[in-house]
Amino acid sequence: MQRKSNFRDVFYVSDGTAITSETLGHAVLGQFPIETHQTTHPFIETNERAEQVKTLVNQSHERTGIKPLVFYSIVIPDVKVIIEQSNAHFYDVLNVLVEPLKHDLQLEPEPQLQRSHSINKDAASYQDRIAAIEYTLAHDDGISLNNLDQADVILLGVSRCGKTPTSLYLAMQFGIRAVNYPFIAEDMTSLKLPAAIEPYRFKTYGLTIDIERLVAIRNERYANSDYASLEQCEKELHKVEGMFRREAIPYLNTSSLSVEEIATRLLDISGLKRKMC
Amino acid sequence: MQRKSNFRDVFYVSDGTAITSETLGHAVLGQFPIETHQTTHPFIETNERAEQVKTLVNQSHERTGIKPLVFYSIVIPDVKVIIEQSNAHFYDVLNVLVEPLKHDLQLEPEPQLQRSHSINKDAASYQDRIAAIEYTLAHDDGISLNNLDQADVILLGVSRCGKTPTSLYLAMQFGIRAVNYPFIAEDMTSLKLPAAIEPYRFKTYGLTIDIERLVAIRNERYANSDYASLEQCEKELHKVEGMFRREAIPYLNTSSLSVEEIATRLLDISGLKRKMC
Repeated sequence: MQRKSNFRDVFYVSDGTAITSETLGHAVLGQFPIETHQTTHPFIETNERAEQVKTLVNQSHERTGIKPLVFYSIVIPDVKVIIEQSNAHFYDVLNVLVEPLKHDLQLEPEPQLQRSHSINKDAASYQDRIAAIEYTLAHDDGISLNNLDQADVILLGVSRCGKTPTSLYLAMQFGIRAVNYPFIAEDMTSLKLPAAIEPYRFKTYGLTIDIERLVAIRNERYANSDYASLEQCEKELHKVEGMFRREAIPYLNTSSLSVEEIATRLLDISGLKRKMC
Repeated sequence: MQRKSNFRDVFYVSDGTAITSETLGHAVLGQFPIETHQTTHPFIETNERAEQVKTLVNQSHERTGIKPLVFYSIVIPDVKVIIEQSNAHFYDVLNVLVEPLKHDLQLEPEPQLQRSHSINKDAASYQDRIAAIEYTLAHDDGISLNNLDQADVILLGVSRCGKTPTSLYLAMQFGIRAVNYPFIAEDMTSLKLPAAIEPYRFKTYGLTIDIERLVAIRNERYANSDYASLEQCEKELHKVEGMFRREAIPYLNTSSLSVEEIATRLLDISGLKRKMC
């Protein structure tokens, strides 16, 4: 069976988490006008598992008549040899840069069985990250405004503008302690910065969103409610953005941004350092 | 000033989030016996900002006498030209694979201003991800055992064995709806699978941890408490692991694993598909 020629099976293979292969593979494939079916095969640490993946790759080739694409990062030599025997195009996501680095640094690589995304790389920053996740969960959605001195960043905004996913992403990926606080309908009559946040305005940022998008998101949750009405969304956004301007709180419109983009833009405008990766 | 020669300044530069450059750069640098000082420069979208980064790179070179390493992924041509004029070694993390893919696919790339980690790539899977984060937060730490039919995975374990960070990571990175439920001291006298979870045992997994590590982690939180005592930790782990075995719940020891590794291993043993990346 021959599928249309711009369709490719893609395999991400690693003796680690395969996160590096996936990240790079997605980014590179996004540059080409092709459709893909992607599967990920992490922790391929034995010859037996490697042979299984090789079989899957070869079956894809036989079925489609087109060589699949294999993005891989494999440290165990035997596993690597087996995978490279499959009938595919290969992209070694690490080695492709190891070679030029070797030349530029005039150093030999010392391949680590301790891979990226491993806990042992940096135990202290790993503990910081877990602590940041805990702090952020404890300060999600206005649950607590205690211990704000320990916050790295405080996010404000109306309900459903992206505060919670952004806060969690900041904690998870960057070890940042994020507080988020929602303004609700009842706050609108005399909207002001909460007194507990006032002393920390230097690390406070606003999130906002386009009216139509907020209406759509709120309707998904509570269809045809006052909460999701155009009038209510418009009123809240108008009041909250007005307060951001009045109080000189820098703010960001999240409408067309992913969580990754909101989080990295906040780091960028705040000058906060990523504490780990 | 000449620093010791195995020390390098590293710059991650992108007109997007710089996440791809960072991920790959970390992984590759981890292969070499060098120390680094790394800074990230996302959203370099104007000539002016590009010139600022170029100045920083050149200053690093002048200060150290050693060429810095620049890992970059830049779509805007003018920005790219400016960055590439700095005095550094360059690693174009996307193009290094775009060339071989071009050859293998016999296709020309269509560079996207819509980069990876952008919301517009796949709006539906993005909404799934936000929904997964919400579901997971609402089912964290035993808060709720409702709607378990919608869960992709249910995690069980003693307090502080890694359930919450793992659940959030699964939701954030993979769009997986994760429930987690802790067994506490009071459960130990007649430990059993909660009745609400019983019908969903096919998607239930255990997390466990080494005694010494649990003692250390609990002591960080509540030093010298009964909760953190060797006796209590030993008892809970013994009982809970016994139940996992008795009930044939597959389980994983998290002691030496990062959140990424726990999450990807769970996907691996459960056969769950990553819903997005």
